[in-house]
Amino acid sequence: MARFDFASDNAAPATPEAMAALVAANTEFTPGYGSDKVSRRAADLVRALLDADAEVRFVPSGTAANSVALAALCQPYESVLAHEHAHICTDETGAPGFFGHGLGLTGLPGASGKIDPAALAAPLAAPDLSHRQPVAALSVTNATEYGAVYAADELGALTAPVKAKGYGVHLDGARLFNAAAAGFDLKAIKGLGVDILVVGGAKVGMPPTEAVVVFDRALARRFDARLKQGGQLPSKGRFYAAPFIGMLEDGAAMRHAAHANAMARKLAGLMPFPIRHPVDANGVFVEMDEPRLKALHAQGWFVYRFLDGSVRFMCSWATTEAAVEEIGEALKAVA
Amino acid sequence: MARFDFASDNAAPATPEAMAALVAANTEFTPGYGSDKVSRRAADLVRALLDADAEVRFVPSGTAANSVALAALCQPYESVLAHEHAHICTDETGAPGFFGHGLGLTGLPGASGKIDPAALAAPLAAPDLSHRQPVAALSVTNATEYGAVYAADELGALTAPVKAKGYGVHLDGARLFNAAAAGFDLKAIKGLGVDILVVGGAKVGMPPTEAVVVFDRALARRFDARLKQGGQLPSKGRFYAAPFIGMLEDGAAMRHAAHANAMARKLAGLMPFPIRHPVDANGVFVEMDEPRLKALHAQGWFVYRFLDGSVRFMCSWATTEAAVEEIGEALKAVA
Amino acid sequence: MARFDFASDNAAPATPEAMAALVAANTEFTPGYGSDKVSRRAADLVRALLDADAEVRFVPSGTAANSVALAALCQPYESVLAHEHAHICTDETGAPGFFGHGLGLTGLPGASGKIDPAALAAPLAAPDLSHRQPVAALSVTNATEYGAVYAADELGALTAPVKAKGYGVHLDGARLFNAAAAGFDLKAIKGLGVDILVVGGAKVGMPPTEAVVVFDRALARRFDARLKQGGQLPSKGRFYAAPFIGMLEDGAAMRHAAHANAMARKLAGLMPFPIRHPVDANGVFVEMDEPRLKALHAQGWFVYRFLDGSVRFMCSWATTEAAVEEIGEALKAVA
Amino acid sequence: MARFDFASDNAAPATPEAMAALVAANTEFTPGYGSDKVSRRAADLVRALLDADAEVRFVPSGTAANSVALAALCQPYESVLAHEHAHICTDETGAPGFFGHGLGLTGLPGASGKIDPAALAAPLAAPDLSHRQPVAALSVTNATEYGAVYAADELGALTAPVKAKGYGVHLDGARLFNAAAAGFDLKAIKGLGVDILVVGGAKVGMPPTEAVVVFDRALARRFDARLKQGGQLPSKGRFYAAPFIGMLEDGAAMRHAAHANAMARKLAGLMPFPIRHPVDANGVFVEMDEPRLKALHAQGWFVYRFLDGSVRFMCSWATTEAAVEEIGEALKAVA
Repeated sequence: MARFDFASDNAAPATPEAMAALVAANTEFTPGYGSDKVSRRAADLVRALLDADAEVRFVPSGTAANSVALAALCQPYESVLAHEHAHICTDETGAPGFFGHGLGLTGLPGASGKIDPAALAAPLAAPDLSHRQPVAALSVTNATEYGAVYAADELGALTAPVKAKGYGVHLDGARLFNAAAAGFDLKAIKGLGVDILVVGGAKVGMPPTEAVVVFDRALARRFDARLKQGGQLPSKGRFYAAPFIGMLEDGAAMRHAAHANAMARKLAGLMPFPIRHPVDANGVFVEMDEPRLKALHAQGWFVYRFLDGSVRFMCSWATTEAAVEEIGEALKAVA
Repeated sequence: MARFDFASDNAAPATPEAMAALVAANTEFTPGYGSDKVSRRAADLVRALLDADAEVRFVPSGTAANSVALAALCQPYESVLAHEHAHICTDETGAPGFFGHGLGLTGLPGASGKIDPAALAAPLAAPDLSHRQPVAALSVTNATEYGAVYAADELGALTAPVKAKGYGVHLDGARLFNAAAAGFDLKAIKGLGVDILVVGGAKVGMPPTEAVVVFDRALARRFDARLKQGGQLPSKGRFYAAPFIGMLEDGAAMRHAAHANAMARKLAGLMPFPIRHPVDANGVFVEMDEPRLKALHAQGWFVYRFLDGSVRFMCSWATTEAAVEEIGEALKAVA
Repeated sequence: MARFDFASDNAAPATPEAMAALVAANTEFTPGYGSDKVSRRAADLVRALLDADAEVRFVPSGTAANSVALAALCQPYESVLAHEHAHICTDETGAPGFFGHGLGLTGLPGASGKIDPAALAAPLAAPDLSHRQPVAALSVTNATEYGAVYAADELGALTAPVKAKGYGVHLDGARLFNAAAAGFDLKAIKGLGVDILVVGGAKVGMPPTEAVVVFDRALARRFDARLKQGGQLPSKGRFYAAPFIGMLEDGAAMRHAAHANAMARKLAGLMPFPIRHPVDANGVFVEMDEPRLKALHAQGWFVYRFLDGSVRFMCSWATTEAAVEEIGEALKAVA
Repeated sequence: MARFDFASDNAAPATPEAMAALVAANTEFTPGYGSDKVSRRAADLVRALLDADAEVRFVPSGTAANSVALAALCQPYESVLAHEHAHICTDETGAPGFFGHGLGLTGLPGASGKIDPAALAAPLAAPDLSHRQPVAALSVTNATEYGAVYAADELGALTAPVKAKGYGVHLDGARLFNAAAAGFDLKAIKGLGVDILVVGGAKVGMPPTEAVVVFDRALARRFDARLKQGGQLPSKGRFYAAPFIGMLEDGAAMRHAAHANAMARKLAGLMPFPIRHPVDANGVFVEMDEPRLKALHAQGWFVYRFLDGSVRFMCSWATTEAAVEEIGEALKAVA
């Protein structure tokens, strides 16, 4: 039987806390489009989590949330700096260009998905040329695509020169709770010059939902119209807000993320293959040749090879110690 | 206390059947992006409902679903014929033009949201001119924005000349179950030349979800990439598929839609204001001046004035007989 | 033999002054993309014409120039107010939505192509709703599509309330010189709150070229990149700038426009059909049934029926007194 | 005094033949939008040049012409294969993504701007994945950005596997006449599976104009509307068509291109710096460090450093033997 336990953190079901909140929110007639009290309560909880006054919206899609954010920060004839292996560059079917009407993405290098600060210098210093898309924003991801976690000051080293140029900053927080559980201070975000943050719900164990946090109130003008036009203003908004209540009210999100991270560390401890990236968050990336990957697949364990050639094992809130031990055995067998 | 019972059919909570299916689907690790067995099962049920072989996808947003459909049928330099008060023309913040990169919408007249067949003749006969957006598709809505329901042959009278020109047809089924409960034959759709149908989940009592049904398999090529780029390919696809299982497996969708329609008829019977449109489905539209509308609002009952000047009272699966009687009293008081 | 003398003012050849300047500019190696001295000289002449400090660019297409201007003033989820029969609404194949990624156009009524000031009130007062595209800008055209000319204070009555809301203003000056020759004060434009003006070259007798004038310097930031991405930053910029030199240096543009206007007045004097709109500029619009229009066509004179049902006779710099008299005879014959 | 003789082939003035045809076409009233006899005659000449039955349009901008072509071949959620240093990838400010609503560009390697045929295999064999933009077309450039010229069979080796997949082919012929003068057989193009070709006018010595040649008639459907919406359907079409008449009627285009190529060879013979790429067409690319480039600039000769680090010297129809000798001296002085 096929096992998807380590295929992706979005292969897991939703957490009991998120589901309970969803069910609890499903009780009466409410106004639509995010104007209901469930949406307001969830937004308050996100603001409290970040210790920040900001506009908060709950939307179905991380793909769209990040793309809408970039479109808000960048004109079609401008470009966004991002790690060359960032999700927006490699796995979104060109959604940033679709939502941003052709906006450009400029890939920067750096180990384990973290942008090398030195790599920022050249594009930020480049003169505006009419035949290239000049830089308008930086997009960073924490935790990174390769499971590494930026500390707040590391992020600040990237955002400071960008803000000094007057450019925008987008933080893709698809796995923000995993980063937080690894020590990243969520309350530091507001001081880093981030204009728009997307807090991932799906990967930490919610049914589909992402929180869009707009720190810069000028950017928030007519944001609901922007979301609506992009298919991201749900009529039944409470269904996207409620899971955040369940996961934030008593700290479940952090607790589940910490568990996922711990499972990744446990798996790293059992791993017979060389580990490619720091196991800061909930992923383990290893060097594994194709025959061995096929052999693992043949045992029913589905995992994916990534763009840097490594094979990814992803843990989630639902990953059990037993499953880690099982796949550990399977890995030993194919190693 | 504010009451939203009649404000919109999306103000209602989700039905027990939909929620139970959602909870039931939340049990194990599954592959993502619609490739799971819950999504397959739901797609089979939609195909059975329509008695049609077609590609079926479950997406978060009706705004986006309809807009993606139009973009699939129409180039940016072409236009879509639709009723001038169709949702895509009036209430989607220009989403068709956003997803369709500037595609045009040409509004046609007709009573109660039904396109007057005679109004089709001129645009279909118009020569291609390079300075106008020539017609590429027709969009129809059943039940209409004003609660009227097309019979299959009425729709056929609109789609036949459009198909004869080789153009596409989109059917917005935001309230398709209400139309079906009013007698519209769902199994007739496949014979009408509809290329893409959107079956609304939210308004019939599901948590956010819409089914996109692509009858024309050539249009379905790379459709997942199309959806992904538009932020409409959910990683956790089962959460959008499951409600359709709950609502289709034992006929709950039709049952709930029939109830909503019955509540509308009951309300129509109590209504002291002139009724503007046929009460075929779940809405009652009446002539009501502004002071009386304000007076009704003052009593806590929120309802909206529509583009044609009428005031809309919307019933849903959750509308109770008691609530209809209560608002009937309130209406009598302000009449 | 077919005669296009009155079909459109772009049916005429280019003026001797424009062509002489084009030939004169074709002499040596120059830097590209508008950085040459011909482009600088032409920009200075446009600034002098308007008595305004502004950024000026010369581009190939009026369709694109107006659309780029609207895209600069309006987000995709916003809309532009314009006369319902304005060129951008009716004759540009949806170019504003294409360049503006789905931006909306809201048509306003008014006699002879002039927006009725009273019609502005409602859209400007409308609250921001997430499901409609809220207003971001006004587009006005002088001379209008129907040959009428706004006086500066008439335009001010439209732009003032728009600017008071903080919205943008675009002036389509496809026939700006005809308006000026009819008494419109070009030096008044800078005081009217116009953000972007497009000065038509083609219709006054230049080879293809339009001047884009950006009064608001903040909007001009990275404008060359905006134009380049839209296919409107010519490598050989001098070919678009030179005609403006030939037409502005010694007043040829005004002289030719005055001639075109005079020919229209002369034609109006000979016209046996009821004249529908004021003959302020270079067009005569008349009430003429289809058999009589066909009869005129049969005599070889091509003219077009417009959206308001009237038939347009357009004069240009190249229209001769003799041609006016000839068509006058033909009109008499078919009347 | 600054000299731009070698800065770019678009720094040159237009040829006498092109200008004479432009002036000759400027004689009478004509219908607009490419329906005039000058446009028809020029289209016939392009068809004869290519020995092909195809739709031909004349447009202002190469940036737009190539981008419109890609948009015709590729959906927004698909991508185009091109050399990583192709103009469309590096110098068009993201125009393909703008005109193509986010379509992707996938850069392929290869010496001197020619795509390595081996590099095609992997993207053509890649399975369709919903989270990546699958390939829909190939774009090739002849002569290449680095002055190399593909022979017809070299191009065929690239286009054959692409056509075998049912994908489209675009040929950017910004310097097609230079390629032809170097031996590339223009009449072979129709047999290579090219769907859309853009024949450059500007770089060979015309005033701004490019010919868009649509070999696949199905793609040509409503092409004028496509061009119009993109700002590329000129009202005064004869001004873009006429230069092609002047340059094609008596072979001037080939003659001028051959001269430009010969000047490049002469310059290569005098060049004291290592030559990086084959001097097939009209460019010479050399290895030159920054101090020496600055020294050359200081002598007034403007040339540009390219993306591969080489410095480009571009010859044109207007490059004189004397100028080549002069810059040869200057180069010797700074070497």
